[in-house]
Formats: sequence, C-alpha cells, structure tokens
Amino acid sequence: MKILRTVRELREALAEPRAAGAAVGMVPTMGALHEGHLSLVRAARAENAVVVLSIFVNPTQFTEAADLAAYPRTEETDAALAASAGVDIVFAPDAAEMYPAGYATTVSVRGPITETLEGAGRGSAHFDGVATVVSKLLLAALPDAAYFGRKDAQQLLVVQRMVADLGIPTRIVPCPTLRDADGLALSSRNARLSGEDRARALAIPRALEAVSAAVLSGETGVAALRARAGEVLIASDLEVEYLAFVDPDTLEEVATAERPVLCAIAARAGAVRLIDNVLLGRDPERREED
Amino acid sequence: MKILRTVRELREALAEPRAAGAAVGMVPTMGALHEGHLSLVRAARAENAVVVLSIFVNPTQFTEAADLAAYPRTEETDAALAASAGVDIVFAPDAAEMYPAGYATTVSVRGPITETLEGAGRGSAHFDGVATVVSKLLLAALPDAAYFGRKDAQQLLVVQRMVADLGIPTRIVPCPTLRDADGLALSSRNARLSGEDRARALAIPRALEAVSAAVLSGETGVAALRARAGEVLIASDLEVEYLAFVDPDTLEEVATAERPVLCAIAARAGAVRLIDNVLLGRDPERREED
Repeated sequence: MKILRTVRELREALAEPRAAGAAVGMVPTMGALHEGHLSLVRAARAENAVVVLSIFVNPTQFTEAADLAAYPRTEETDAALAASAGVDIVFAPDAAEMYPAGYATTVSVRGPITETLEGAGRGSAHFDGVATVVSKLLLAALPDAAYFGRKDAQQLLVVQRMVADLGIPTRIVPCPTLRDADGLALSSRNARLSGEDRARALAIPRALEAVSAAVLSGETGVAALRARAGEVLIASDLEVEYLAFVDPDTLEEVATAERPVLCAIAARAGAVRLIDNVLLGRDPERREED
Repeated sequence: MKILRTVRELREALAEPRAAGAAVGMVPTMGALHEGHLSLVRAARAENAVVVLSIFVNPTQFTEAADLAAYPRTEETDAALAASAGVDIVFAPDAAEMYPAGYATTVSVRGPITETLEGAGRGSAHFDGVATVVSKLLLAALPDAAYFGRKDAQQLLVVQRMVADLGIPTRIVPCPTLRDADGLALSSRNARLSGEDRARALAIPRALEAVSAAVLSGETGVAALRARAGEVLIASDLEVEYLAFVDPDTLEEVATAERPVLCAIAARAGAVRLIDNVLLGRDPERREED
C-alpha cells in the first residue's frame, strides 16, 4: 500500500492502471478510521481494481475551531487499518497541498438541502467546505465510483447534487450506517465520549428505533412520531439540536410518513456533537438504485 | 463534423479517441463566431487530434436581461465556420441540459480578480456564472487543453485560478487578441455597433496604443499614462466605465509601469458594452509560459 501526499503523485500512481482499463474506487475520509469506514473500503474493494482512501481533516468544513482542534488524528493506525482492509493507495495531503497560497475557489450548493439541519446548525460554510473538498478530491483521483456513508445523510445528498450538477464523472455509492452492538452509529467522534456521555448518547439510536417501530405499526402522523422520539430523548438529558422529519430527497419538512421520510437527529452528549438518522417507510437499501 | 447536444453524447464521442491516446483540445464559446474564435480553433487544431468547440450562451453570466436577449445567436453560420476551421465536434447544449430542474451548484472565485473591473461593473454573479459554466464544460469533455482569448483578460485569469484551485486536469492556453484592420478587437458584440458607434469605439484601441507607445518611450508613471489614454477617450465621446492599470496576475491597482501592467478599458458605444486590454512592458507572448 502506498501513502501519497500530492495530487501529482496520486495521478501518476493511477495513470498506468487506468490506461489498462482498471476501475478506481475512492473512499474520502477525515481519518480516525473505524469499522464504518472499513465497510466503505470493502464496498469499494468489491467493485474496483484499485481502491484509494483519502485522509484529510478539511479545515474549511469546520465552523468551530475547537471542533477542528479536537478532531482525532491517528494516521499510523489509520494506515494499518487501511492496509488490512485492502486499500491500495492512501492519499493524505496536507492543508497546503489542498489550499495553497492564493487559493480562492469555493463550490457551493444552495437551497434547502444545505440550509436545513446541519446547514442551519453549522452555517453555510460547512457544506461549502464539504462540496469544495469533495470536488477537489474527486478531481484529483477521477475515480469511477466514490463511497459515502448514510450516517451523514445530508452530506451524501449535497455530494450527489454537486457531482450531478458539475458533471463530475464519478458514480456516488451510498453505503449503510454501521452501528456498535448497543446501537450507537459508528463515528470518529465517539472516541471522545466519556462512559457516561456514551450511555446518554444511546438515546439517539433508541429514539430512531422507536420511530421506526411506530411507522411499522402503522403510525404516519409526524406529530405523533415526534412525540414518540421526544419521550426517549428528553429522558436522556441530551442537548438536542434538532429532531427532524424531512423528505429524503429535498430535506423539506413533511407532516406525514405516508411516503418515505428521513428522521434525523443532532444532539450533544457532553462536548461531543453527534448525528444519526433513519429512513422511515422504505427499505433503506432501495435508495442505492435511485 | 458532429453537432452534439448532450454531455452523454459528447462523452461517448470522445471515449474512443481518448482510449486510443488522442489529445483533446476544447474551445469554449458563446457562438457568434468570428476570426478571434477561429484563431483559438487553429491553436487547438495544431496541438490536438480532436478539437471540440462548445457553443452555449450561458444565461447565468449575464447580469442584464437585455444583454442576454440581444446576444447574437447564429448557430448555422457558426457550424459552417467551425467545420471549415477543422473542428471535429460542436457541443451545443441547451440551457436545460446545462442547468436541469433542481440544479443548485455554483463555483465561485473570490478576491480581487473577481471583485475589480468586470466584477465591479457587472456584479459578482458574472464571474460566478463564468467559473461555473467553464467548470461544467471542461468536466463534460475533460480536454487536455482549453483555449481562451486574451481580450477577456480577467475571464482568462478567473478560469486559470478556478482550474488550478479545483484541480481540473486541463491545461489552459491563453491566445492573443485578434483585431480588425482598424484596430478594434474582434468581439461578437461588434456586430451590434452602428457605423457611427464603431468609429467612436476605435478610441479604445487607440487609447491602448497611445499608452503602449508612451511606455515604450520610457514613461512609467501611471498618472501620466492615464492622462494620455484619457485624452484619446474623452475626445471620442464614449461612455467609459473603467480605465484601469493593474497587476496582470492579481488585478490590483498599480502606480507605476516599472513592472508589467495590464491596461484595461470598458466602455459603451451606444448600447454596446466593449472591453479591451493591453499588457504593458512585457512581450505578451511571454505570458504563455507562465
């Protein structure tokens, strides 16, 4: 497995396999790899001759300096995990490689899909940072396919929109959220949870499970579903930022779950901000064929 | 010569020559082709096995509805000219192909190179429109090289910045401004000039020539150069929007022409807004190697 630091090296490494017709799959990450990332690698591995995993803690998508400073950086462990999962190339540029002096370009996706939920909580700069860095990473590798987790449902939607709009010739492949045995969605931020905060954070997947169960038993009123999730969250003493029931494609609020609905939660457990979501009323894997 | 309307058709047409190692050159235009565009085609023809010329009057870069409505559209003549100049593929999408329903993404270049001159006069939406459409056209064809005229010096700079920043794998090739025998820079807008306005418009190249001559004879003070150009322009009765002496790389105002300076003019002759520029103090062809 190669570890490359520059776009030039990455392109040189990909030129020969690409000329020979090899499919290239890419898994963009911010490092601090966990089983969720490795499941993306396995999905990429199954479909491509060459798998590139990028590690870049992108400063422009952080809207809080403290969050950026606290974000875990574990490159040696990451490299070992990537190698064992079958990654061929780790692309780990530094900030000066991605944003050299004089850098002046931003890719922005506008409208409800960036203004609501994370966009409302973290400001428009967050998704500008995401759209810009993902466009740069995809243009650096020009992969046939890139793999993103559904835990960051809104990020996935923003990336799909940006790639379709600009016409970046990469297929975006959504992959299921992975969870620990207790239900907590895997996230690099979980490492920063105290034992107590982690126990508290379990209210997030439990609230999502409660809502899913209610929909399966025939409840379609969002007011009733919200009350059901609210009971679980309030009992937990989490600081809930949003509990949203939205159209999974437009992220606009909905009043009923007669059609598929994305239920999304953001909450703080201690100093750690966590997000999670579930797609109600449709087999989540159906979306892969969208 | 093929005329293609969709990104899919364009990619299909380029797949085979590209797989065979053929270099692809692209000339993005808004149509109403003149000798200036054809000189870009010839430059592309000399360096590439396949030449694509795009024709798209991009609505998002027009900040005046009347200017968009009045912009000449002459596709049949354009196709004949393109064919005779050796174009292989004309890519002429409609607005719905470029910006389908739900389209939400903008590419923006920020800082002095978009805020001054045309950016100040036409608003930031103009260069957002330019950067976005050029990124989409380049990503549609993924050419090895794309050819832009120096008449739109600021547009060239914005495109160079955007392509470098996002890492679009295309070489941007600047090409010299072409002029009619009377000195007027070729522009699709010239067709809309009355005879009287055209005579008046000649003050623009004459002012640029006067400044160039003054620099060649040793004048380096921008105040003196501005006065020299001003004399010519004032006599013409043109409505001058700007007469600027700026750093050719940053577009920041300069006080002396001891180092290379871009002298740029925008002025209205009747209803037609014209721009032109000259690089002072350096062989303009030197910049090709930047």
